[in-house]
Amino acid sequence: MEEIQKLLKEKKINELRKLLNGLNSVDVAIILTDLYNEMGRESFLIAFRILNKENAGETFSYFEPEMKEKLISLLTDTELKNVINELYMDDKVDLLEEMPSNVVKRILKNVKKEDREVINELLKYPEDSAGSIMTTEFVDLKENMTVGQALKKIKQIGLEKETIYYCYVLTAKRTLVGIIDLKKLVIRDSDEIVKDLMETNVIKVNTLEDKENVAKTFSKYNLLALPVVDNEDKLVGIVTVDDAIDVLQDEATEDVEKMAAMSPSEDSYFATSVFKHARNRIVWLLILMLSATITGGIINKYENAFAAVPLLVSFIPMIMGTGGNSGSQSSTLIIRGLATDEIEIKDVLKVIWKEARVSIVVGITLAILNILFVMIRYKEINLAITIGLTIMLTVIIAKLIGCCLPLLAKKLKLDPALMASPLITTIVDTCSVLIYFNVATMIML
Amino acid sequence: MEEIQKLLKEKKINELRKLLNGLNSVDVAIILTDLYNEMGRESFLIAFRILNKENAGETFSYFEPEMKEKLISLLTDTELKNVINELYMDDKVDLLEEMPSNVVKRILKNVKKEDREVINELLKYPEDSAGSIMTTEFVDLKENMTVGQALKKIKQIGLEKETIYYCYVLTAKRTLVGIIDLKKLVIRDSDEIVKDLMETNVIKVNTLEDKENVAKTFSKYNLLALPVVDNEDKLVGIVTVDDAIDVLQDEATEDVEKMAAMSPSEDSYFATSVFKHARNRIVWLLILMLSATITGGIINKYENAFAAVPLLVSFIPMIMGTGGNSGSQSSTLIIRGLATDEIEIKDVLKVIWKEARVSIVVGITLAILNILFVMIRYKEINLAITIGLTIMLTVIIAKLIGCCLPLLAKKLKLDPALMASPLITTIVDTCSVLIYFNVATMIML
Repeated sequence: MEEIQKLLKEKKINELRKLLNGLNSVDVAIILTDLYNEMGRESFLIAFRILNKENAGETFSYFEPEMKEKLISLLTDTELKNVINELYMDDKVDLLEEMPSNVVKRILKNVKKEDREVINELLKYPEDSAGSIMTTEFVDLKENMTVGQALKKIKQIGLEKETIYYCYVLTAKRTLVGIIDLKKLVIRDSDEIVKDLMETNVIKVNTLEDKENVAKTFSKYNLLALPVVDNEDKLVGIVTVDDAIDVLQDEATEDVEKMAAMSPSEDSYFATSVFKHARNRIVWLLILMLSATITGGIINKYENAFAAVPLLVSFIPMIMGTGGNSGSQSSTLIIRGLATDEIEIKDVLKVIWKEARVSIVVGITLAILNILFVMIRYKEINLAITIGLTIMLTVIIAKLIGCCLPLLAKKLKLDPALMASPLITTIVDTCSVLIYFNVATMIML
Repeated sequence: MEEIQKLLKEKKINELRKLLNGLNSVDVAIILTDLYNEMGRESFLIAFRILNKENAGETFSYFEPEMKEKLISLLTDTELKNVINELYMDDKVDLLEEMPSNVVKRILKNVKKEDREVINELLKYPEDSAGSIMTTEFVDLKENMTVGQALKKIKQIGLEKETIYYCYVLTAKRTLVGIIDLKKLVIRDSDEIVKDLMETNVIKVNTLEDKENVAKTFSKYNLLALPVVDNEDKLVGIVTVDDAIDVLQDEATEDVEKMAAMSPSEDSYFATSVFKHARNRIVWLLILMLSATITGGIINKYENAFAAVPLLVSFIPMIMGTGGNSGSQSSTLIIRGLATDEIEIKDVLKVIWKEARVSIVVGITLAILNILFVMIRYKEINLAITIGLTIMLTVIIAKLIGCCLPLLAKKLKLDPALMASPLITTIVDTCSVLIYFNVATMIML
């Protein structure tokens, strides 16, 4: 970075060109963004303009949306045309989805005419569908080709394609009948026939398939690319593994956000505005707040109990806390298990049986420790038994609620991640306070 | 599945062979596991034995560890030898790490002698290092080869290699000097020289690099494979993208477990025993329990306050809940941001400034709603102001604690995920109770 700034200041453009074009485009995108922030748009534009055509397109695709918009406003129409036509089809579509409408107009004006139709088709696929993340650039072969002919075709068209590692064998009507990987084509003899070598048991998805399932298919079958077909089984595009990884990462982030009682945000942390952050968080805080007042109402009902034994009040945080934490441990394990397909709805009895045993072990252990603690600290056997018994029952009920609610949500086709810590905690709080005062009334009053 | 059971019962072995060998090995592994559970080991063994050699090895590598162990005990030494020698080197090493020591002995006895040394080397790499997940099978080329010679070499040795899509260019001393992808080799003319075409700016990792960073490198640079070098820059292995995806998934699961106050488990949910589950959960429950008693102690101190106004007690769950939830929203966003490299330690002031503004918006909104609610419900202006003011202060402090602690943890080289909901909640509980009773004492008593 320092070296680049120095070369820029000394106007050693040739050396700079050599340096930047030798780096990986991902790194060039990071360096140029820093350059913009530290030395302003002039230097940034100089550096971008000395990238060769191919690198410029690739670097552009790695910029954050914000930087893409800034850069587009700085480029001439000719430059913009060059950059955009270097992009792969899925990156073109992503770009259009990210930009405000006036920029979209300018981009579309500079897109090749034949691409414009494809882009318009791709933009029609629903958000989160396989169609929305696929690219239309792939290598297609015919069944009766020889290996030699296939390699020749790849050699002619390969450079423009995002991946040529899997080739797709289509009929005259573009129905997908087989798949053959480049490894096989390179290794086999050139007069062998594609039909005899291709894999006919093709793993594929429909254009409307949820992109989360697409990503899971990649991780299940260890794929590098996955063909996407329409309802008539015609091949319309492929999803590549790098996009699948992005989806997996985004879905994990979304789940974690939901599990912490937030509406998930499409944008990154810093790119989301203060008011959007606030709105994403207030809704759930309000819902949980209202349900917490129910717990408050219950406590209110037992005013006589804590008027008689004020010490009872001081155990409320510990009991509610332990209940909430026990419940969220279980719900988290189940939610994550469901997300990674390790646990399925049909496992419900197995899960309950497992959690029941775990909760009994945990509940009894914590109960014994609490009885000892209260005895040593307050020397009151009734109080000790009350606390011990409450803790045990609370842990058991919390863990059962914690494991059942995510499974119930899944069954009702809701997102299990909504049943995470905060909601479980609030529900368990009510239960634990009820258990506590009932046990206390029975034993102590 | 039903069809397979039917074919097995009717002993139509030839049809079964055709069917099973035509399926994807991932699916065969699932089907055979179901077969074991539903029809017993006899049928399972018949089905496994009719797989051809290559499919048997691949199917084996997709079994759960439990099934692998069962299968090994059923196979003869010759069969075991065939299966194991079909596995890629990294799968061999994984297998040895998963099996109990008596099985390991039997496996090693049946491994080819030349492989045994490699395996022993690989087993020495620390858990979670790049060395522990790499495979030693890759295609290496020399700088002065022509494209034609390179393709010929790939054709000779390619079938045994896990991936041939990236080829590595080595010096005579096996130092990594360049990388060339198969796409380029196929597209370029056969008399061009590898040296002129190869990428010299190679993205690589050291054998001791943490596997989480390895996985992040894949997602940052959109790679299909990543070379692993030793301290002398000699190429010793490669990591493939399917293993990187597994690491990303495992790390996300681990983070989520830690965020729900559990010690992360290496095994899957069902594979972990009841006692191990209980132990993973009890430690954190105890720590949080002890700190919750501090909150209890504070409440105890204000006995006079709630003796005078018993209604105060009934707001405790709502105030503690809102504080805890606000704090965990912030901590979750920061923890996930740190995990995906979107937020770095140097952003600490930016994060605090953002969270401060968000918390003021959220705090004031919730305060106003609470004041209205209490006024309508209880018609007591002092109580309304107490609750409103407490909520506002609690939300602000909770969000600041929630965003600072994960960053502090990262700075201290601890895992930020430990600073998630449960710990934040417990710390915030103490603060919110203190704020509550102080505000109440000031305004109401």
